[in-house]
Amino acid sequence: MAIITLTSDLGTSDHYLAVVKGRLLSAIPEAKIVDLTHDIPKYDLFRTSFILKQTWHHFPPQTIHIVGVEALETEDYSLIAVLLGGHYFIGADNGVFSMLSEELPQEIVKLQLSPNQKLSPFPMLDVFVPAACHLAEGGALKDLGTARKELRDNHLTRPFYNDACLTATVLFIDSFGNLVTNVDEALFKKFVNDRPFRIAIPGKREDVVKISRSYSEGSDGSALALFGFTGLLEVAVAQGSAARLMGMKVNDPIRVLIDD
Amino acid sequence: MAIITLTSDLGTSDHYLAVVKGRLLSAIPEAKIVDLTHDIPKYDLFRTSFILKQTWHHFPPQTIHIVGVEALETEDYSLIAVLLGGHYFIGADNGVFSMLSEELPQEIVKLQLSPNQKLSPFPMLDVFVPAACHLAEGGALKDLGTARKELRDNHLTRPFYNDACLTATVLFIDSFGNLVTNVDEALFKKFVNDRPFRIAIPGKREDVVKISRSYSEGSDGSALALFGFTGLLEVAVAQGSAARLMGMKVNDPIRVLIDD
Amino acid sequence: MAIITLTSDLGTSDHYLAVVKGRLLSAIPEAKIVDLTHDIPKYDLFRTSFILKQTWHHFPPQTIHIVGVEALETEDYSLIAVLLGGHYFIGADNGVFSMLSEELPQEIVKLQLSPNQKLSPFPMLDVFVPAACHLAEGGALKDLGTARKELRDNHLTRPFYNDACLTATVLFIDSFGNLVTNVDEALFKKFVNDRPFRIAIPGKREDVVKISRSYSEGSDGSALALFGFTGLLEVAVAQGSAARLMGMKVNDPIRVLIDD
Repeated sequence: MAIITLTSDLGTSDHYLAVVKGRLLSAIPEAKIVDLTHDIPKYDLFRTSFILKQTWHHFPPQTIHIVGVEALETEDYSLIAVLLGGHYFIGADNGVFSMLSEELPQEIVKLQLSPNQKLSPFPMLDVFVPAACHLAEGGALKDLGTARKELRDNHLTRPFYNDACLTATVLFIDSFGNLVTNVDEALFKKFVNDRPFRIAIPGKREDVVKISRSYSEGSDGSALALFGFTGLLEVAVAQGSAARLMGMKVNDPIRVLIDD
Repeated sequence: MAIITLTSDLGTSDHYLAVVKGRLLSAIPEAKIVDLTHDIPKYDLFRTSFILKQTWHHFPPQTIHIVGVEALETEDYSLIAVLLGGHYFIGADNGVFSMLSEELPQEIVKLQLSPNQKLSPFPMLDVFVPAACHLAEGGALKDLGTARKELRDNHLTRPFYNDACLTATVLFIDSFGNLVTNVDEALFKKFVNDRPFRIAIPGKREDVVKISRSYSEGSDGSALALFGFTGLLEVAVAQGSAARLMGMKVNDPIRVLIDD
Repeated sequence: MAIITLTSDLGTSDHYLAVVKGRLLSAIPEAKIVDLTHDIPKYDLFRTSFILKQTWHHFPPQTIHIVGVEALETEDYSLIAVLLGGHYFIGADNGVFSMLSEELPQEIVKLQLSPNQKLSPFPMLDVFVPAACHLAEGGALKDLGTARKELRDNHLTRPFYNDACLTATVLFIDSFGNLVTNVDEALFKKFVNDRPFRIAIPGKREDVVKISRSYSEGSDGSALALFGFTGLLEVAVAQGSAARLMGMKVNDPIRVLIDD
């Protein structure tokens, strides 16, 4: 039984998403369609990529992931299908797939539109659905088009540090307002190196001087830090929105300091 | 395996929708339930009808479509089930089904409540779910009630034109802010008849003088026109909301002009 | 085929919910996963409990209900699984399960984390998903941890009344703005006892002096009362939001008066 996930900025209030599902079920009535999210802010490739990166490997091997964000065939982008880590990804080559894994893709194919097919206003429907059905029915990836060597790259902002200061960047803000940064536990430990540290919190809040084990630690309204589900350093507020309380946005810096 | 779609203005934050799904799965555990959308603005029959019209025929034949918008049994409306184009529709006869197709329904039935059943505050649950289960298990439509000849009609605003001006009306605004009108490609071509045209854009934006093939054409912030997924003339803005930028609402006119 | 419902305050715009679904499908590809709602306001245990109470018994026996609201293992709460009315419930013992039924649970188990498992930042994923999979595969509830006698209790506000006045409390406001109170039909009839009554409506609206059978009764903008789907007294406005028009919130009182 094929599992097909859908990720998009289509929202759920129009007909577009339902049409995609209808077409998939018309071709493969027993397909299991799972919505990752359709609440991506319009055209936000970075958030799309972050969410996909956190999610795909929790699905079974052979899952087919359709990504309909900025999925237009333009001079800049082409439409592709990718085999990576035993999963299939179908979308536009707009950088969204380059952050999914440290691993390189096993196979990349530029999707071949049939010669007389006119440019579709809705490639997620007209190009991705047939490609997904081909794969779900056991068809080979290479039959979908012409081989490609590389994915368009999208670089994540990397953390930088010297002996006394580690500058993290907010990558993602979840709906609880937790600030997810680009610093993982290994880098954090290497930098801190068992020294006392403080995470500088904007505004008049007290700095954070320890790593918590749960979002529920700390008194209401004060900041805490922990390594969350993503394995990345997060700054949070128990039962409150760190983003709102601290006025933080994606790409803002958070500094970890050693005072000697 | 029965496919049952649900369309409503119930939203997803209350228990109503989940209760409908629970009842369906209690009767038919293997049913495939697909949400078309539950974000219809409360009581908006026109939008319901538009979304359903764009969507239903992409699902497999025999799909059962439950429509829970203004689904009350009142003196004005009755509750009905309809066979149209090989699909089943269950809802109130409030005009929502009259725009789905040029084709006439093969069969219409006024749903018969059991004689001692009191008026339900939630007919989508108490009337539509049992009717859907009857159909899903292979029961005949005619066994659900008494035959009806006609659907209540709801007229779409039709475009009007003379030799120099075609007045389209905005039927639908999607979540990207694209303005979908009531002018299809055949009518547009007949009116334009290979003459130079301009689509008048409100505000200080430049008029649109050609039909684009993709939403990504045109520079950021300028308007473009194309025949979208619906086959209808749309006015859009690349990576922007035409509705917001032009201050347009459903039912507003958009004029196509020939200057000689 | 296992049916697993998910209820949470996670929203649908992050990766968390999709990760839970991915893990469930990796373990049990044929599982039927149903979203009750993920739009619970953050940390709102009372609304969670109300929605769950209205919904669970409409699903088939053996359904597994995962509840991810305030699902942290803290000094206050522990993580539990419950067998009640032939259904399984998995969540934190934060009072959310005590209102589901008049019936007592058949079995309660405090979920045993494996000894070397560190505290999870996301117990819905790390603790509830494995527990659900164990149950879905036919495993016994008692194997999930240590038996518990009682649930943490959460008391509903009960209506109070004397001969002339019944004070109801708003328990729930649905997305239509209907005000659902804590007064059921039996209590209402006992209090009214065939006497003329009026339901006092805040603002300048006319009091309600009868029970309607449908939301569509009454002229636009005037209040009406009925026993809704929940079996509880509701105050509503035909095609309008009673909550907004009357400025009412959860926990506000509504009085039913007898004037002699």
